[in-house]
Amino acid sequence: MARVFNFSAGPSVLPEEVLKIAAGEMLDYQGTGTSVMEMSHRSNAFIAIAKDAETLLRELMEIPENYKVLFVQGGASTQFAMTALNLMGRSESKTAEFVNTGMWSKKAISEAKRFGEVKIIATSEDKNFSYIPELTKDMFDPKASYVHITANNTIFGTRYRELPDTGDVPLVTDMSSSILSERYDVTKFGLIYAGAQKNMGPAGVTTVIIREDLIGREFDITPTMLKYKIHAENESMYNTPPCYSLYIMKLVFDWLKNKGGVAAIQKINEDKAAILYDFLDKSKLFKGTVEPKFRSLMNVPFVLPSEDLNGAFIKQATAVGLINLKGHKSVGGMRASIYNAMPVDGVKKLVEFMKEFESKNG
Amino acid sequence: MARVFNFSAGPSVLPEEVLKIAAGEMLDYQGTGTSVMEMSHRSNAFIAIAKDAETLLRELMEIPENYKVLFVQGGASTQFAMTALNLMGRSESKTAEFVNTGMWSKKAISEAKRFGEVKIIATSEDKNFSYIPELTKDMFDPKASYVHITANNTIFGTRYRELPDTGDVPLVTDMSSSILSERYDVTKFGLIYAGAQKNMGPAGVTTVIIREDLIGREFDITPTMLKYKIHAENESMYNTPPCYSLYIMKLVFDWLKNKGGVAAIQKINEDKAAILYDFLDKSKLFKGTVEPKFRSLMNVPFVLPSEDLNGAFIKQATAVGLINLKGHKSVGGMRASIYNAMPVDGVKKLVEFMKEFESKNG
Repeated sequence: MARVFNFSAGPSVLPEEVLKIAAGEMLDYQGTGTSVMEMSHRSNAFIAIAKDAETLLRELMEIPENYKVLFVQGGASTQFAMTALNLMGRSESKTAEFVNTGMWSKKAISEAKRFGEVKIIATSEDKNFSYIPELTKDMFDPKASYVHITANNTIFGTRYRELPDTGDVPLVTDMSSSILSERYDVTKFGLIYAGAQKNMGPAGVTTVIIREDLIGREFDITPTMLKYKIHAENESMYNTPPCYSLYIMKLVFDWLKNKGGVAAIQKINEDKAAILYDFLDKSKLFKGTVEPKFRSLMNVPFVLPSEDLNGAFIKQATAVGLINLKGHKSVGGMRASIYNAMPVDGVKKLVEFMKEFESKNG
Repeated sequence: MARVFNFSAGPSVLPEEVLKIAAGEMLDYQGTGTSVMEMSHRSNAFIAIAKDAETLLRELMEIPENYKVLFVQGGASTQFAMTALNLMGRSESKTAEFVNTGMWSKKAISEAKRFGEVKIIATSEDKNFSYIPELTKDMFDPKASYVHITANNTIFGTRYRELPDTGDVPLVTDMSSSILSERYDVTKFGLIYAGAQKNMGPAGVTTVIIREDLIGREFDITPTMLKYKIHAENESMYNTPPCYSLYIMKLVFDWLKNKGGVAAIQKINEDKAAILYDFLDKSKLFKGTVEPKFRSLMNVPFVLPSEDLNGAFIKQATAVGLINLKGHKSVGGMRASIYNAMPVDGVKKLVEFMKEFESKNG
């Protein structure tokens, strides 16, 4: 079959150029006579790949020198525990403050509760997480160990347009579905974590960007593999890293750099999202579910007036090669995830198809 | 460059047939129009891959129904914590008993010590781990929570020829470097874990085989992602699994099944190892470092009489496409890791080269 347009929320579409390079190098990486999958992680060839990945990410995100970049395993779900185990103890309060903007925030909250005090300072649950709560500096306790937000909510399709001012309390952020999709000022964060499987590469590797002063404050009960300190001291090679996933990630970073970096892809992402949101705003049949001000650039949920229509739309879209458009059950309807690697043509084709569907069913 | 013979201890050689399939399917997995890397882990296509991987492993290892097969992240290093956190509490003693047969045993021991009592019941450290200690039933405390052994010692090249009789105390085993290389009776174990990057696939996925009655006994401080219960209840899909690594693993299992399964590969492995050990026993220059009775089928350490000769050998071997033969610093000299995917021809070529080296330097 020809390549389809894949709107999956994650794992998700990767740049075709990257997949072609990976296929071409599968049996012999750059004259080594081995696949990257077969390389010792202590080999010069692999160490170069890992170092390049870090250097490229530092460049793309303008990560300052006083931040460590770690590549670990276990996904954001493991970070929910790691952030709490490593950071809650940094202040006497042992309290973490959370903003609850959806399912992933909730999971982070419930894991943190197992290791210390949790305060939910704002939530958008009253309107099914269709907006981001307003946050003012006085809402944050300066004695808290950290404040946690979810930068982009994959399921509900919302994102922070402005970061909260938490003063001296470190801002910890799940950036899984928006990292590298728009410019972020890394200096505003104490810690950023993101699973790779949306904007960075295949599932199985997780990026952590952590300010150095936050390393080494873990509780005694922290398993060795969940200590940021261990991974920082060993340059993410304390044990065998997920080598092949890291290699693909490095290729994705190369691709993004060649595209012009984050500023350039942000412009493309804004254009892509605008094509879809403009149509939703004009449509009499399709409806976006998020308050315009907080709309995600990456995940666009929308609904039709009936379950029958939703079902028919998803089925017909799949038949023309627009796949994985079914929305998450918490929102219903459809969701188009349009990550960095989704071509503009994919979004255009989707909107054309929506127009056609509307003219037939409107 | 032509494909080389790669004797890396891990990540290590994979079957060329598997790499060819992976390369061929990279942009379009079986008519889906997407790469396996791009597939939602909740998609039918990916769920079929994961189920196939489990079914094939159950078949290859004859895993009984009262054992769960889990695919998780974090490598054996994470299992050092997980086994302790999940199993130490199963008896009132909260004591784990260990046999210390090398660096990986030691790492498992030091992690377990952080969560409960540890008793080292035997060690082979007196002779630089060149043998497996004799173990008799009376050495084990029937009140212990579990007994931990390292089935095959990647660094020191030793393996258990017989399993210890631990009575009713569950035997927990790090099988990272010998799983699927020879027949094991799974019913003798309470829990088996193994990183994939030796005999199963690429780094980034870890297999756990656990008897059902050992699930759900974790300490309260166990992070959610480190609970066997969570992964068992969610069929290893609590969060996004390392999808692509799992897919390659499934292809390796297919390959092994086509080879005739574990009994057939064991015969090949015994033949391969015999070629190398027979030469070592006859050589006047090369010397094996392990007591013959405990020699590994997978990792074969050997030394030359001087550091200069070791260095010359490794350099010259690399030049003729016999790569990654440098031994671990704890043993020195050379180590040939000859996992399932190492062809007999690779071992023959190595021994030919060793003969030639001996004739020139003997």
